[in-house]
Amino acid sequence: MVLERIDYPKDLKSLNISELKTLAHEIRTLIIDTMSKNGGHLASNLGMIEISLALHYVFDTPIDKLIFDTSHQAYTHKIVTGRKKHFHTIRKYKGLSGFVSPNESPYDHFYAGHAGTGLSLSLGLAKSRDLRGQKEHVLTLLSDAPLSCGLTFEALNNISSSLGRFIIILNDNAMAISNGVGNLHTQILGRFTLPRQTRKEAKAFFQQFGVRYKEPVDGHDIGALIAAFEEAKDKEYPILIHALTVKGHGMTRAVEDPITYHGVSPFDPQSGQIHPTPPKSTFPKVFGKHLLKMADKDHSITAITPAMPRGSCLDAFMEKHPERCLDVGIAEGHAVTFAAGLAYGGHHKVVVSIYATFFQRALDNLFQDVCLQNLPIIFALDRAGLSPADGTTHHGIFDISFLYAMPDMIITQPRNGDLLKDLLESAFSWKRPVAIRYPNLACEETDRDQTYRPLAVGEILAEGEDIVLIALGPMYRTALEVRKILQQNGIQATVVDPIFLKPLDKALFLDLLETHTHFVTIEEHAVTSGLGMIINSFLTEHSKKAIKVQNFGLPDRFLEHGDYTSLIQEAGLSCEKIASEILLNFTREEITIPYEDRALS
Amino acid sequence: MVLERIDYPKDLKSLNISELKTLAHEIRTLIIDTMSKNGGHLASNLGMIEISLALHYVFDTPIDKLIFDTSHQAYTHKIVTGRKKHFHTIRKYKGLSGFVSPNESPYDHFYAGHAGTGLSLSLGLAKSRDLRGQKEHVLTLLSDAPLSCGLTFEALNNISSSLGRFIIILNDNAMAISNGVGNLHTQILGRFTLPRQTRKEAKAFFQQFGVRYKEPVDGHDIGALIAAFEEAKDKEYPILIHALTVKGHGMTRAVEDPITYHGVSPFDPQSGQIHPTPPKSTFPKVFGKHLLKMADKDHSITAITPAMPRGSCLDAFMEKHPERCLDVGIAEGHAVTFAAGLAYGGHHKVVVSIYATFFQRALDNLFQDVCLQNLPIIFALDRAGLSPADGTTHHGIFDISFLYAMPDMIITQPRNGDLLKDLLESAFSWKRPVAIRYPNLACEETDRDQTYRPLAVGEILAEGEDIVLIALGPMYRTALEVRKILQQNGIQATVVDPIFLKPLDKALFLDLLETHTHFVTIEEHAVTSGLGMIINSFLTEHSKKAIKVQNFGLPDRFLEHGDYTSLIQEAGLSCEKIASEILLNFTREEITIPYEDRALS
Repeated sequence: MVLERIDYPKDLKSLNISELKTLAHEIRTLIIDTMSKNGGHLASNLGMIEISLALHYVFDTPIDKLIFDTSHQAYTHKIVTGRKKHFHTIRKYKGLSGFVSPNESPYDHFYAGHAGTGLSLSLGLAKSRDLRGQKEHVLTLLSDAPLSCGLTFEALNNISSSLGRFIIILNDNAMAISNGVGNLHTQILGRFTLPRQTRKEAKAFFQQFGVRYKEPVDGHDIGALIAAFEEAKDKEYPILIHALTVKGHGMTRAVEDPITYHGVSPFDPQSGQIHPTPPKSTFPKVFGKHLLKMADKDHSITAITPAMPRGSCLDAFMEKHPERCLDVGIAEGHAVTFAAGLAYGGHHKVVVSIYATFFQRALDNLFQDVCLQNLPIIFALDRAGLSPADGTTHHGIFDISFLYAMPDMIITQPRNGDLLKDLLESAFSWKRPVAIRYPNLACEETDRDQTYRPLAVGEILAEGEDIVLIALGPMYRTALEVRKILQQNGIQATVVDPIFLKPLDKALFLDLLETHTHFVTIEEHAVTSGLGMIINSFLTEHSKKAIKVQNFGLPDRFLEHGDYTSLIQEAGLSCEKIASEILLNFTREEITIPYEDRALS
Repeated sequence: MVLERIDYPKDLKSLNISELKTLAHEIRTLIIDTMSKNGGHLASNLGMIEISLALHYVFDTPIDKLIFDTSHQAYTHKIVTGRKKHFHTIRKYKGLSGFVSPNESPYDHFYAGHAGTGLSLSLGLAKSRDLRGQKEHVLTLLSDAPLSCGLTFEALNNISSSLGRFIIILNDNAMAISNGVGNLHTQILGRFTLPRQTRKEAKAFFQQFGVRYKEPVDGHDIGALIAAFEEAKDKEYPILIHALTVKGHGMTRAVEDPITYHGVSPFDPQSGQIHPTPPKSTFPKVFGKHLLKMADKDHSITAITPAMPRGSCLDAFMEKHPERCLDVGIAEGHAVTFAAGLAYGGHHKVVVSIYATFFQRALDNLFQDVCLQNLPIIFALDRAGLSPADGTTHHGIFDISFLYAMPDMIITQPRNGDLLKDLLESAFSWKRPVAIRYPNLACEETDRDQTYRPLAVGEILAEGEDIVLIALGPMYRTALEVRKILQQNGIQATVVDPIFLKPLDKALFLDLLETHTHFVTIEEHAVTSGLGMIINSFLTEHSKKAIKVQNFGLPDRFLEHGDYTSLIQEAGLSCEKIASEILLNFTREEITIPYEDRALS
């Protein structure tokens, strides 16, 4: 085993090409084995093994800075930078992150889960180096997918043609997570199989920004890669090396179906067969299935996704109605502004399906192009809440803050699949921008007919005179569990699902203020800026007596990755923890309203 | 006068070229005259007269959709679409907006004060049209400056080469507000004075995205423009017409100094001499002057601006230390992520100067590239608060919402120039991301030495036992005035400047909670999502007795343009209005704390 002798990049330097090839093979096996148990980004990492080894072989990391643009493909990098022994913990709670993580290693410089930041960061690093008068290389590992991000273009527009020791490695596998989208992929980037003409256009594309373009190199030929990197070293101008790779290289099934094998759940390492999981309903699945059902009936329904048709469960819609389900590539800002143009026409009901964390990239588009126009677009905010295994960069836990600041915005979150379907059916009738948030969690769903949901009407799920538990979305389950524990302690709790965060069901909460003085909010969102903040302001404004409020939500710090239960536990959002905090704070004396005055319906 | 006969685009159709030229001249005079009184975007509008007339002459607006990308250059468009008689009210309260405004006219489709949205909106409109099976033209009026926005590139990447009746007019004056920045301007776009080679590159640039490129046309030759538009009509592919214009055309002084005459205050219409204004201190001026002073002494200080060196008062810094004061063009996302790369090097103190409203375009960059990295970058958020004359799209009144959601973020706002300087000097010592918000308002400033400001320490500006007024930044003046009125009514108010919104001065507010029960917040930010929300949550969490809270801030709806006083009045933020609302709500009985127990320091 060559891998046994490799812990850090310095250990690579003495290997010959043949040993490096063996090493690549061994790492491939290690990645497949580990992913078969842990799940993770498989196909993209299989495509990046040789490039990663060649970079660490040629350059002097971490002094030379290796910057990943979207860093889910950094597994080989992790294995050869001191983390081989911990690789089996990848994506597990307290284990290695599935992305580059500055907390883990001095070889990891920037968190990078949102695409397109690599070149801007690298330009900053190069500027810092030049102002300091130093000489380290700045290496950007760009994939072809982030090229569709506007941010990459803004950086390209700011590269000076005399910027030295600035090397871009374009890992071109001709795909994003799903298929690559747009003119860059169809017209400009080249592949082995494409005519020479296309390569000429890739060259012209980069050279117009002052970046020298190196002819395509086989991204799985480690000797060729080393030669290309050695040649590019120490130059006094920026260079792009176009490396052609195959997503899933070395694993037949992954090569044949790179979309499925982009991010996998555990599978059989021999056959590649993904272990069957019970076919349960999840919020994204309910969304995808029901939106297609609506679109079958109503030909004005149109959906837009920024490069996430599979993750957002829109693939069936896209296959059946390709003219009405559009993938714009990793380009969240464009997705939202394009949606505004489409909705302005007035004949189409536009749904933008976007992960809550990626929606952060389109908040100004939401402001100017949608909210100022008061366009009735539905934003289906997928992965709202924790993104357990992806972690830090992917948690969708800050979106309510800015959404709430937008006048006329409607913010809603369903607690189960049926309610999600009701809200989807009802939302266009409200004639305003609507955000429907939901996590990637299992949810109850029945075959019942859809019910029209009036705007700003919440629901009382259980009644009790002592205390009010207000729970956002699927956290109602936690609230009901907390209620049971409180009941065992002689405390009777009302459980409320507000359903709408904006506008709030004022009548409901005013009623509750008449009869209760102790309010608890429970949410899987940053506690500073979500449900708790909204309820606090409401109660402050309307309460005429002393009240007690306890806000439970995600703490005011960044959270890492791990399994859902561990993260919820760490955040203090387990039923037991919430119940015990409430019990600590509960005093019967505070209830100053005579029992007979309470108007419990 | 030809202009007398022109009210709507239909009136243009019967004019001959000679009459159109006369009309252009008359409109030029009207714009110069009006701007000499009202102030406004002068140079860019003088550059757009002929293009606007030719477009309305050739196309059938508003059925054909004319979409402005950043719409401060729409004055001619307004004059010939039913608003000639109101043109003298432009930028005034309840008058015409200085930007395209769907509220004003069916010829105005989208609010567009933030650059780069034109192509995405137009692609949406074209998609809507094609799905509807209709035939109207979609016309995008792009300036060269928004080409540096990533959003424009995301749209270019999504244009289909078979998209018909899709015409882009590139108004190329080779400038943003200040000089154009980046490879697009230096390498790709062409001008009359540039060699033919550069035009070839402009052609190649657009054609790589499937857009046919028409050779440059003189943007002030109305006959040539009409011919070019006629030729481009009804084609079954997207076309870009490269129109070369001169910013300020027809007014010598504006042509000679287009940066000064981009946005002007009132001036003499004959000489062009701008009326002298009293040289008073404003927050942006204090910022620019003091940052330069700091940068003279400390060579690690580096500033970044996205195309606003003049507005942000960084021009002196840029002239003196060009290597440390960098304009990246209209590319806010890149500005922030680039700053992160630069700050990561650890040797530079990085200041990003950005208008609060434009910062909305870089919130994800703030999240992932700055906050997750905990990089000590200072964000100088200029124009935080109302942007009176620019209005709707430019008010910087939503930023606190998302900033507050970011863990470890520091948010601060100075009430005067001295405090702004103190905060600038102190901020790097806090070793965390810092946002210093300030409006473009006059501010007091003295020559006193700077004082170190410890983190999260507010100030009591006046004491009184009955009520607490908490005022953000320059609103302390309002609070002191309100205090006087209350005093005349026998009510004694404490006035607090929190200085820090995050972290809050907990000790100070806990003390106040001991001694007071009636709290009032006053802010020039959306009241739902700023100071009021933060204080409400604090009080809710910590108060053990009944309290009364009144939040004064900007209402939960979009605000238009106008003079500062009228807008403040409309928002209910005048001293008189606030005082009367407090008086209405004040009851002496609510003060349940015995006077002798109050610990007034």
